[in-house]
Amino acid sequence: MHNPVTVEVTRGKLVESRHRGLAVVVDGDGNVVYSAGAIETPTFPRSSCKAMQALPLIETGAADAYGFGNKELALACSSHSGEDEHVALAASMLKRAGQDESVLECGAHWSFEQKTLIHQARTLEKPTALHNNCSGKHSGFICACCHAGDDPRGYAGYEHPLQAEIRAVMADLTGTPLSRDNCGTDGCSIPTYAVPLVDLARGFAKMATGKGIGPQRAAASKRLIEACMAEPFYVAGTGRFCTRLMQVAPGRIFAKTGAEGVFCAILPEKGLSLAVKCEDGASRAAESMIAALLARYFEKESAEQAALLGMANHSMRNWIGLHVGDVRVTNVLFD
Amino acid sequence: MHNPVTVEVTRGKLVESRHRGLAVVVDGDGNVVYSAGAIETPTFPRSSCKAMQALPLIETGAADAYGFGNKELALACSSHSGEDEHVALAASMLKRAGQDESVLECGAHWSFEQKTLIHQARTLEKPTALHNNCSGKHSGFICACCHAGDDPRGYAGYEHPLQAEIRAVMADLTGTPLSRDNCGTDGCSIPTYAVPLVDLARGFAKMATGKGIGPQRAAASKRLIEACMAEPFYVAGTGRFCTRLMQVAPGRIFAKTGAEGVFCAILPEKGLSLAVKCEDGASRAAESMIAALLARYFEKESAEQAALLGMANHSMRNWIGLHVGDVRVTNVLFD
Repeated sequence: MHNPVTVEVTRGKLVESRHRGLAVVVDGDGNVVYSAGAIETPTFPRSSCKAMQALPLIETGAADAYGFGNKELALACSSHSGEDEHVALAASMLKRAGQDESVLECGAHWSFEQKTLIHQARTLEKPTALHNNCSGKHSGFICACCHAGDDPRGYAGYEHPLQAEIRAVMADLTGTPLSRDNCGTDGCSIPTYAVPLVDLARGFAKMATGKGIGPQRAAASKRLIEACMAEPFYVAGTGRFCTRLMQVAPGRIFAKTGAEGVFCAILPEKGLSLAVKCEDGASRAAESMIAALLARYFEKESAEQAALLGMANHSMRNWIGLHVGDVRVTNVLFD
Repeated sequence: MHNPVTVEVTRGKLVESRHRGLAVVVDGDGNVVYSAGAIETPTFPRSSCKAMQALPLIETGAADAYGFGNKELALACSSHSGEDEHVALAASMLKRAGQDESVLECGAHWSFEQKTLIHQARTLEKPTALHNNCSGKHSGFICACCHAGDDPRGYAGYEHPLQAEIRAVMADLTGTPLSRDNCGTDGCSIPTYAVPLVDLARGFAKMATGKGIGPQRAAASKRLIEACMAEPFYVAGTGRFCTRLMQVAPGRIFAKTGAEGVFCAILPEKGLSLAVKCEDGASRAAESMIAALLARYFEKESAEQAALLGMANHSMRNWIGLHVGDVRVTNVLFD
């Protein structure tokens, strides 16, 4: 396995740190139109595939039964920051299914975002499962179970009917057999399945184009992607990279991060999907990689391309605001 | 440049992320007794060399004049967590030199440690420069200036006499020319100089053994290293890796982290110094690397070796406490 250096972090005149990575772009027929690094490497999608995991929420009819709009669907696909609006919406989703936070199996944690964490520290004794960045996804899971008449208890477990359904959906999309052999446990306790990065991208290309999947799944995919693009704040939060990427070109970029340096994106009007993984798991590198890769597909010198390149390559300032170095993508992502 | 994979992060049965790195151990004569990766790579020591930067505090006589004991000297070498004790001690150091926090040029930031940040959020409107992880080092700088009769203003700048003195000290220790060519600006605004990792280790080996440096510098080095080992809480803070490493074998391990994946250590009784750099800048990998490297030099199956290996290789649990994977060093560090 050899992955090229895709992102460099400089200080003064020197490169201080280097990130290696793999990246791939595929079209709706599954053809690879760009690649760098070992794109067949089994990669845990982690939270990057939440839009795939949210398909049963729509396909079971639960989303319609509970009257969910774009905000609820975006939150079901989110890794949110635990801002007050995220927490309130997750609670309201559960309430519509006659449930409350006691059913959530994701565990509790303080916000990963400093500003929100400070707000939480000042207003809460401790966080609940509703503050977990995955509480929207889990609320969607619980709603899908309740509407189908299944007992939601144990919904995070490999053997629960909901996880079996999600496994079938993801195997259909990625074309990869999923079993305990390539299964890990995610931070929020649900199964996560390692698939070749290129096949993860192929799954998103099917969602982007509807090609290779049934009409009901294609419609549900379109609805989720459009909901996320319409409500990017509910997919992540204030200042977060996913939110900012989708705000660069409203309705033209879907983007979702995952832990350990994964990032996936869709360009609906191009019928393309993009996926990157930083070998060492660094978010800063995955962010620069996906922004640079997205920039390839916007018009030269357009405002959108400039904004994306500005997110890919950016300066670092220290505590008193001095410029100390830069994060920059290497030529690999422009070849 | 090629650095081996030194740390793997697993999930389920698979490796999810990989870190590459360089590592070196040298003796007091500057001989390399272990190495992995491109150890000649210019490496910014960042905060790992704070004990070197603190030498003028002792060599000028300032530490004695102001009555500094082990706690103050440890704090002068620290990247502390901003706990109340750290903040109070930094303030008292400044006070003894007739100064206060308004002279600090490091800037302000909230604690990087979640528990301390929550405490700060609940007790402070906002952090001051005293809460900066470098405030102990900066307080030591200001004390050295004041005792020498120099105006401390501008003490963080490349041209200030104090930084010129630190440059001379570090050139003496590392045997490497230092100039604007290999200079970057650190997070706390002082100059940081990239030197080959092996030469950074050689500098610490001189501090560990007193070989190759003058008797006054050797004595000052011994005093600083012993102060840090005696007061490990003041070098970092509650639960921090530097503090825990030094607590494993009191008086037998000195250890200091630096940003972007650097870690340096000394084994005084062996007359050895150790230095590692994770290529991608990850702290989690640098921590595992330095712990594994230290473990090589403790008796097989001793409590100390077991504790160090337990810090090098450890399991990861998710929000509800399930075991999801492991951080583990590769055989490279045991060859």
